Amino acid sequence: MNSAEYLKSLNDGRVTFFEGEKVDNIVEHPILGKAAQYLAQSYDQIQQIVAEEGESPFGFVPHSPDELRAFTKRQVELGMIFNVTYTSLQTLKTAASRLQQLDPVYRERIEAYSKYVVDNDLRVTQCITDGKGDRAKSPKDQRDPDAYLRVVERRPDGVVIRGAKLHISLASFGHELLVIPTKAMKPGEEDYSIACAVPVNAPGVKIMNVSFSPRVSDDRSFPHSSRVHQYVEGFVVFDDVFVPNDRIFLNGEQQFAGVFAHSLGLWERLAGLTEMAEEAEELLGLAQLISEANGIDKIAHVRIKISDLITYATLIRCTVEAAIAQCEVNEKGEVFPNELYTNAGKFYAADNFHAMTKHLHDLGGGSILTAPTPADFENSEFGPYAEKYMATKEGVSGAYRSQLFNAIRDVTADTQGGWRKVTHIQSGGGLFAQRIVMRKHYPMERAKARGLHAAGLDTEATAMLKPAAE
Amino acid sequence: MNSAEYLKSLNDGRVTFFEGEKVDNIVEHPILGKAAQYLAQSYDQIQQIVAEEGESPFGFVPHSPDELRAFTKRQVELGMIFNVTYTSLQTLKTAASRLQQLDPVYRERIEAYSKYVVDNDLRVTQCITDGKGDRAKSPKDQRDPDAYLRVVERRPDGVVIRGAKLHISLASFGHELLVIPTKAMKPGEEDYSIACAVPVNAPGVKIMNVSFSPRVSDDRSFPHSSRVHQYVEGFVVFDDVFVPNDRIFLNGEQQFAGVFAHSLGLWERLAGLTEMAEEAEELLGLAQLISEANGIDKIAHVRIKISDLITYATLIRCTVEAAIAQCEVNEKGEVFPNELYTNAGKFYAADNFHAMTKHLHDLGGGSILTAPTPADFENSEFGPYAEKYMATKEGVSGAYRSQLFNAIRDVTADTQGGWRKVTHIQSGGGLFAQRIVMRKHYPMERAKARGLHAAGLDTEATAMLKPAAE
Amino acid sequence: MNSAEYLKSLNDGRVTFFEGEKVDNIVEHPILGKAAQYLAQSYDQIQQIVAEEGESPFGFVPHSPDELRAFTKRQVELGMIFNVTYTSLQTLKTAASRLQQLDPVYRERIEAYSKYVVDNDLRVTQCITDGKGDRAKSPKDQRDPDAYLRVVERRPDGVVIRGAKLHISLASFGHELLVIPTKAMKPGEEDYSIACAVPVNAPGVKIMNVSFSPRVSDDRSFPHSSRVHQYVEGFVVFDDVFVPNDRIFLNGEQQFAGVFAHSLGLWERLAGLTEMAEEAEELLGLAQLISEANGIDKIAHVRIKISDLITYATLIRCTVEAAIAQCEVNEKGEVFPNELYTNAGKFYAADNFHAMTKHLHDLGGGSILTAPTPADFENSEFGPYAEKYMATKEGVSGAYRSQLFNAIRDVTADTQGGWRKVTHIQSGGGLFAQRIVMRKHYPMERAKARGLHAAGLDTEATAMLKPAAE
Amino acid sequence: MNSAEYLKSLNDGRVTFFEGEKVDNIVEHPILGKAAQYLAQSYDQIQQIVAEEGESPFGFVPHSPDELRAFTKRQVELGMIFNVTYTSLQTLKTAASRLQQLDPVYRERIEAYSKYVVDNDLRVTQCITDGKGDRAKSPKDQRDPDAYLRVVERRPDGVVIRGAKLHISLASFGHELLVIPTKAMKPGEEDYSIACAVPVNAPGVKIMNVSFSPRVSDDRSFPHSSRVHQYVEGFVVFDDVFVPNDRIFLNGEQQFAGVFAHSLGLWERLAGLTEMAEEAEELLGLAQLISEANGIDKIAHVRIKISDLITYATLIRCTVEAAIAQCEVNEKGEVFPNELYTNAGKFYAADNFHAMTKHLHDLGGGSILTAPTPADFENSEFGPYAEKYMATKEGVSGAYRSQLFNAIRDVTADTQGGWRKVTHIQSGGGLFAQRIVMRKHYPMERAKARGLHAAGLDTEATAMLKPAAE
Repeated sequence: MNSAEYLKSLNDGRVTFFEGEKVDNIVEHPILGKAAQYLAQSYDQIQQIVAEEGESPFGFVPHSPDELRAFTKRQVELGMIFNVTYTSLQTLKTAASRLQQLDPVYRERIEAYSKYVVDNDLRVTQCITDGKGDRAKSPKDQRDPDAYLRVVERRPDGVVIRGAKLHISLASFGHELLVIPTKAMKPGEEDYSIACAVPVNAPGVKIMNVSFSPRVSDDRSFPHSSRVHQYVEGFVVFDDVFVPNDRIFLNGEQQFAGVFAHSLGLWERLAGLTEMAEEAEELLGLAQLISEANGIDKIAHVRIKISDLITYATLIRCTVEAAIAQCEVNEKGEVFPNELYTNAGKFYAADNFHAMTKHLHDLGGGSILTAPTPADFENSEFGPYAEKYMATKEGVSGAYRSQLFNAIRDVTADTQGGWRKVTHIQSGGGLFAQRIVMRKHYPMERAKARGLHAAGLDTEATAMLKPAAE
Repeated sequence: MNSAEYLKSLNDGRVTFFEGEKVDNIVEHPILGKAAQYLAQSYDQIQQIVAEEGESPFGFVPHSPDELRAFTKRQVELGMIFNVTYTSLQTLKTAASRLQQLDPVYRERIEAYSKYVVDNDLRVTQCITDGKGDRAKSPKDQRDPDAYLRVVERRPDGVVIRGAKLHISLASFGHELLVIPTKAMKPGEEDYSIACAVPVNAPGVKIMNVSFSPRVSDDRSFPHSSRVHQYVEGFVVFDDVFVPNDRIFLNGEQQFAGVFAHSLGLWERLAGLTEMAEEAEELLGLAQLISEANGIDKIAHVRIKISDLITYATLIRCTVEAAIAQCEVNEKGEVFPNELYTNAGKFYAADNFHAMTKHLHDLGGGSILTAPTPADFENSEFGPYAEKYMATKEGVSGAYRSQLFNAIRDVTADTQGGWRKVTHIQSGGGLFAQRIVMRKHYPMERAKARGLHAAGLDTEATAMLKPAAE
Repeated sequence: MNSAEYLKSLNDGRVTFFEGEKVDNIVEHPILGKAAQYLAQSYDQIQQIVAEEGESPFGFVPHSPDELRAFTKRQVELGMIFNVTYTSLQTLKTAASRLQQLDPVYRERIEAYSKYVVDNDLRVTQCITDGKGDRAKSPKDQRDPDAYLRVVERRPDGVVIRGAKLHISLASFGHELLVIPTKAMKPGEEDYSIACAVPVNAPGVKIMNVSFSPRVSDDRSFPHSSRVHQYVEGFVVFDDVFVPNDRIFLNGEQQFAGVFAHSLGLWERLAGLTEMAEEAEELLGLAQLISEANGIDKIAHVRIKISDLITYATLIRCTVEAAIAQCEVNEKGEVFPNELYTNAGKFYAADNFHAMTKHLHDLGGGSILTAPTPADFENSEFGPYAEKYMATKEGVSGAYRSQLFNAIRDVTADTQGGWRKVTHIQSGGGLFAQRIVMRKHYPMERAKARGLHAAGLDTEATAMLKPAAE
Repeated sequence: MNSAEYLKSLNDGRVTFFEGEKVDNIVEHPILGKAAQYLAQSYDQIQQIVAEEGESPFGFVPHSPDELRAFTKRQVELGMIFNVTYTSLQTLKTAASRLQQLDPVYRERIEAYSKYVVDNDLRVTQCITDGKGDRAKSPKDQRDPDAYLRVVERRPDGVVIRGAKLHISLASFGHELLVIPTKAMKPGEEDYSIACAVPVNAPGVKIMNVSFSPRVSDDRSFPHSSRVHQYVEGFVVFDDVFVPNDRIFLNGEQQFAGVFAHSLGLWERLAGLTEMAEEAEELLGLAQLISEANGIDKIAHVRIKISDLITYATLIRCTVEAAIAQCEVNEKGEVFPNELYTNAGKFYAADNFHAMTKHLHDLGGGSILTAPTPADFENSEFGPYAEKYMATKEGVSGAYRSQLFNAIRDVTADTQGGWRKVTHIQSGGGLFAQRIVMRKHYPMERAKARGLHAAGLDTEATAMLKPAAE
């Protein structure tokens, strides 16, 4: 498909909503349509890659640290709609090899479905997070049994599912929804142990959209979110949706429910961390540019804040490099980023993001909020004043400096800025969940051995002191 | 004036702009009009106070710690348009007593002008921050001499001023602009040493407005900023505005240029700190409510974050209490909040605000961004799903919980959230400026004496060791 | 007693140990003896106060904020041996009034015992923290039932107690040990619900001491810990110690076990916080002095660190002022520092202490560790070089600057520095325990109301949304 | 040399001092002797390596990332006296290639001197940091011209130098002092531009020593510093020391003064960072062990602190991995750790070290300070109580747990703990200096390009807005 065909394909009867209204035509919708146009570009990008390189990036799997680095770079460039589809396909493949103990039919269905997606050049988004109800309770103990998506009916030809999946990026902009359990399930939660694929326009699927695009008449005052950030999040309801057997990839084998989410994690994590590294450098660049434009870049306290941003960007970059250098390899020779290092990087990036935006706010000043917009500069009566009073030293025009302020506001102090803050903290399950992952992957016995050595408790003379269990 | 009369008074020929367009009628403007309606309420509030208490709050000055505490509470309640006017009047009075060495005419003009404002029930906003040009240079050394507002012509009957004042809260919503130097001036900067009052509709005054109000069709998804926060910031241009003599309060006496900004500081600081204390408690309340609604309030890591918010709110409150308990008294027995303690409080509140919002984002989860809005709940097709899947435990409805999310987004992760973050950091001149003020007010000799004692360098035996200068 | 009589009184057969050796004579012991000499001074200080003011400071109880502030200052001046005795007496008095439901004999014993202590001018230390065994288990569920001190035998004339109390400051330097439960007890823990007084030289009491005094031949290189800090901590073992009835203040009434520790908390907390405020100022003073001596006090990054120390010292001071201004009053009109504010202050001081010492280490430089000592300056061959190369600018001698370094090392980077760091964190039960106390005392309903208001959930129209339980 | 020969070699007439006393025989000195014995071991270690591998580790230079990783591991194992000698030799070699424009005699001398050191199996310590006097002034502007080491006389056969070098690790324990300028010098500072080698026992060399070894009678209560940490820092005075021509490597060529310190930096940095990574893991191990021994390792707030330590250890490790993976290569194919990543790692490790020890203090509790020592356990009267009351759950003996406390005290809360804190902050010139290095090495133009892109200022349409200079 090219971009035009993609846009046409979205008009397939899907049921979507926006701010309380049903959306008749996504492409023509004033806000969602902009997102669709933006996302369509990646179809053309990929056609060009295929033309140049002879093969589709969907088929590529890295087999060395260098290939891993190069492919991650491409993932970041091709944007989210490519990524979610690519990681969906890889996730299914990885999960298949882990489900070998089960009925071989799952494996065959996964292969057939993957072929169908590639052959038809479809886009697949990932439906993971459930409504969840009371966080203090398990799926099976919820007041409303649908708080986690589940099978409500089993038929010879398939199953009927009910539930909701939240925070589904671009749900209304793909063709397929890959539905997987949000976490490992317990005995008694067989109905919640369902993985399957559902067309976006299947009867019973209803999607409520939230957009973070600017609402002003003139997009130029949001230079970042109006151009490169067109994320729309979906609240996807499955109201008794029938799924035929050939689209079911797990069906009640509770002890395997966690396989899909874990397989997904392997494939998506490095691209996310790399984006964080680039965003960190973007913050640094904006901080340095606005300091120069304000004429304060030589002042000591400014340099200290710039140094903090350098440290931030560099440490994240170090975790990317370490995750690649110490990558893990599976039995087929495919490489995956190191899990401990990737998680440490994401945690650090998220944990310090708010503090870094504080620095940017401190360096920029109140004009982050109050700088004139491009439209103000074009107003014949007020524009000349905007230029006169926003200009600083030789070479720094008012329009240039104001646009830096507009970018900083857009990226850190407006709708998009809020989106980033919350998303950084929440991606990967929240800071606390990331701590748990790190704890799981840290070689703690090595650390304890070092501690015993420091205490002189690893010598023969002290052997009898050590707890037996150690 | 009552609220209706106030609204009418804004239609006086003032020249204001919004996003590149001239505004013909503020009250009827879709965005600025809402702010005007909101601000109008304080006229009615004050009329009621006068009816009940027999005197206007504009006339009150605290003379004891208890009066200071009570009056500050009132300042917070009556909102910004009352406050800027009240502090303008007190600033003028305080400055007058400090200008006693100068020509008594300034004092007389201040008294007459203050009477004029009170008699006509006008509102006065404060024009302080200049365009500033290159921050590395003084007013007189700027490439564009108008980078700081200045007198460009002196006539027998008055002066002509030129320049711009930035970040002027509610500039388009008052009747008078109190123009004062942004800082102390150096010899040679006499033309920049000008303090005066200018009617908003004076010829040559032009105001560009920035609003932080929600732009969605349905305000209910912004429960905080659509109701209690209707700040509009003005970029005020003085394009050769004539100011008659009776409105000039300082005219070239460079060594007194800093008096006005410092007098202003005395009067405005405690109300700002008190608002920060209340906002901190609001963050805490939202954090606790959403944790309860999510069913996670008993989890240990959640409690730790709640504790951090408690510490934050309590420490700010302690600085308020300390600033009142150790208040300073002037020769007339009027009391002012302690300068060191107030500044420490503001610095601490601003320095930690970003970190506290991080906690809130961590506790709330992704639904801060993606929760359904009231309009989604009202949609007959989607509403029931929103209710079903956003509800958690017994007693927590989906609509209630979603509205908490909408409030958290509004206050910390959307336009208004960005406004708060930048404003906290910038109010009082930025974190670095606040450090300087604290350093100036700390009793450093006492600290050094304590350090010498710790080193045993304050005894007779060690006396000869100490540097002479100490 | 005067200081000489006090020293003599310590030679009463008490059984104490130091680094594996039994101590025959505390006063003549090379390390413990120094502590005894230092502590003896407070006897003379108090005699002087009685001579000047006509009454003993042991009898004073504050009844107003101003009296509370003045008395706290005195507490800090009179040092730890006065304080533990004073707070022991007040604790008993407060506890007595809370035990009114119980047998009046406890009250009578407390009064008689208090009179005995005052009449004989004795010093009482507080034995609170037990061995505790496995922290995951209650006293009654421990593998070793003696992990918490308990009654092992009840006789007509008294009880026999067994257990150990840890971290007992100055246990070997008082005359009496006030033994109280470390926390509230559960049903079934009646034997652990014992409060009583035991003479230090009672049969079965054995104390192991740990000292933080310098071990070098020349004390002058530890200017602080050799003079004003002579804390010795005791590990007090009660090996089947008989306690006669008239010294028993609680005996098995489990539901009252927590009364003593809580009463103690009321009396000791403000003095501790005030000391922290003074220590914070001491750190600041040393930082400023060494920056001046190094010639770096005008450098921007130095000033920022000094500002951080100013903020730290000022915020702690604000909590002291707030705790006094908003003090609590009991039914007799006696005032107590505000519990929330005191705890917030202690938590903040402890939580940031390590970071503040980092600043001091950054400002001072490597000479904190390697500066010559007074003895080096006195060496005829090396002394002149020490002076020559440690001197900096006019007026700053090498000996003066080196002694500042020695003080900084002593206070932050040597034995005493480690003591401070751990003690700050642990006093009050550790950072986590302090969080719990704060959470308990914060007016959370007020915070939640504010959160509901921010969400627009406190109006009539939204009333039905709120959870019933709220 | 073997260890015995090394010890003998120290008795060569060198002039050293300790706490105001001249030291007659280092090896027999109660404190310095212990350090000498410890350091002697590395001679035997190296003999064994030569026996096994056929070549001395002094001759090895890494040529690939893997070799760099392996060699760094060896550097850490062989300890400081090996390292300072190895880096001295490499520094001279690197500097030689950078001094090619100068008289070839320097190069020849360096080669001859290096051969002399290797042939005689000598150890060389590095004398860098000067007394420095007033930090606000340059070497040539100091009140005392000797504040920085300088040439006071030039003779045909050599030069006479005067000055002091501070914080010289192990100065009294090597055979040679490599004297180099502490930083780049300015025109007019030719006399300060001196690099040379001086035997420790040369006439005029006098060394004052500071030791951080334990002073207690029984070393076992300091399990770490009594065994693996025997650092002694020297204050080295050069009192008109004559240096013959063949030991002079730079003599007045002011523009090359910075070459030596920079060459040194290339070689020493990765070993230091790797040690920090191992120390971080040691802290983590101690934290986990003491939590388990206390029975609190499953508690949520404990796990959060453990997670913080995991993040700390992992991020430092990531910087090591990144510095190796992205190593720099010189013209001979020798590889050096990446400068930006190494510095970022050191800065991060130092900046967070105090906070991490806070966690350890919080997890351990007051017994870090007051735990019984091994001698207490051996006391027949008190030992059984120590065992009884320090034991916790099944398998955790009192002696084991107490020794963990002793290790934690030793490493973080006693003399050695203070040494670590200050040294971490100061190594590499202090936190501020490290910021400067990072700023210098960060690819800032790349960051700015990214910032311009975010602002939409890198398109053709906006080209005219950008400042020309950018």
